[in-house]
Amino acid sequence: MRQYPRSLNRLINELGKLPGIGGKTAQRLAFHVLSLSDREAEALASAIMEAKQTLHYCSVCGNLTDREVCGICSDETRDRSAICVVETPQDVMAMERIREFRGTYHVLHGAISPAEGVGPSDINLKSLIERLQSSDEVKEVIIATNPNIEGEATAMYIARLLKPAGIKVTRIAHGIPVGGDLEYADEVTLLKAMEGRREL
Amino acid sequence: MRQYPRSLNRLINELGKLPGIGGKTAQRLAFHVLSLSDREAEALASAIMEAKQTLHYCSVCGNLTDREVCGICSDETRDRSAICVVETPQDVMAMERIREFRGTYHVLHGAISPAEGVGPSDINLKSLIERLQSSDEVKEVIIATNPNIEGEATAMYIARLLKPAGIKVTRIAHGIPVGGDLEYADEVTLLKAMEGRREL
Repeated sequence: MRQYPRSLNRLINELGKLPGIGGKTAQRLAFHVLSLSDREAEALASAIMEAKQTLHYCSVCGNLTDREVCGICSDETRDRSAICVVETPQDVMAMERIREFRGTYHVLHGAISPAEGVGPSDINLKSLIERLQSSDEVKEVIIATNPNIEGEATAMYIARLLKPAGIKVTRIAHGIPVGGDLEYADEVTLLKAMEGRREL
Repeated sequence: MRQYPRSLNRLINELGKLPGIGGKTAQRLAFHVLSLSDREAEALASAIMEAKQTLHYCSVCGNLTDREVCGICSDETRDRSAICVVETPQDVMAMERIREFRGTYHVLHGAISPAEGVGPSDINLKSLIERLQSSDEVKEVIIATNPNIEGEATAMYIARLLKPAGIKVTRIAHGIPVGGDLEYADEVTLLKAMEGRREL
């Protein structure tokens, strides 16, 4: 069977590696890229490279940033007595959208999952302990991991770890549909979940 | 509301310009790109640039190629007495998949659409006339434009244009669902459409 030119096959192949992009969609996207002006294609390619090169994790909380310390951690007006623990940088953005929480965050970059071989040492947890040890400002750790098995296991693990140190550990309420994804929760549900948080 | 770092917003914005990629999907794809290794991200970005730089239209038929003349036009074994006229390079690939047609192609890069202000001079039609004038090998022009209003109008226009020159003009049969897209037709349907072609 006749094939597309090599560089077109390569582009279709690379686009097909993206999550949720099947063969037909990759082909459609590839032809769209070819229909772009040189300037537009260059903008897309350089946005990919620039994002990869400039973005990294905040040295304090693990959130995505283009600086050494992220905008939230370096914001003097944020309340340093509360840390909200989330799984991903997307979850930080979801939390920020409710405009309710004025504390800081800690991004785990995952959740404990024995089934997938992800243990406490595989997520960004050690730096949370170090944050709590290096400061006695923190009065409450709010755990906002996803409401699924891994998120719950992570919440229980952190609660057991911090309780002996006398830190209040709370869990956001299950206003979020169980099995759902925090990132996609609507703002009202997320607000209710924050209000209904209970001590673990 | 707190925003993502600038380079991340830029990437989400660029990905969101792709067809069928909404805001949430663009965000998900952007975070996927960030999770790639430097080498993988570089492969994606360079595939975009390489495809843009190496691909252009065949000087004979208008099909996509990385050479001066495409693989089909330069293939000595192809039957030069029949030209199959299609709207897009994707349609050439769809035709090639049925392994039935051994002639050559002509890619219009669109269809006549008075509603959208696309006239005969806005599609790759002039070079088809020139092909037919410069050679008396061509005995049949098979019109395989999409079975919708624009494709039918284009077929009728070409038929009227070529009939006086004594060239046999045929239209692939409506085995393809009317209103559908040639690119997504299954191979059996497309084969039936080729077999049932009738003179215009």
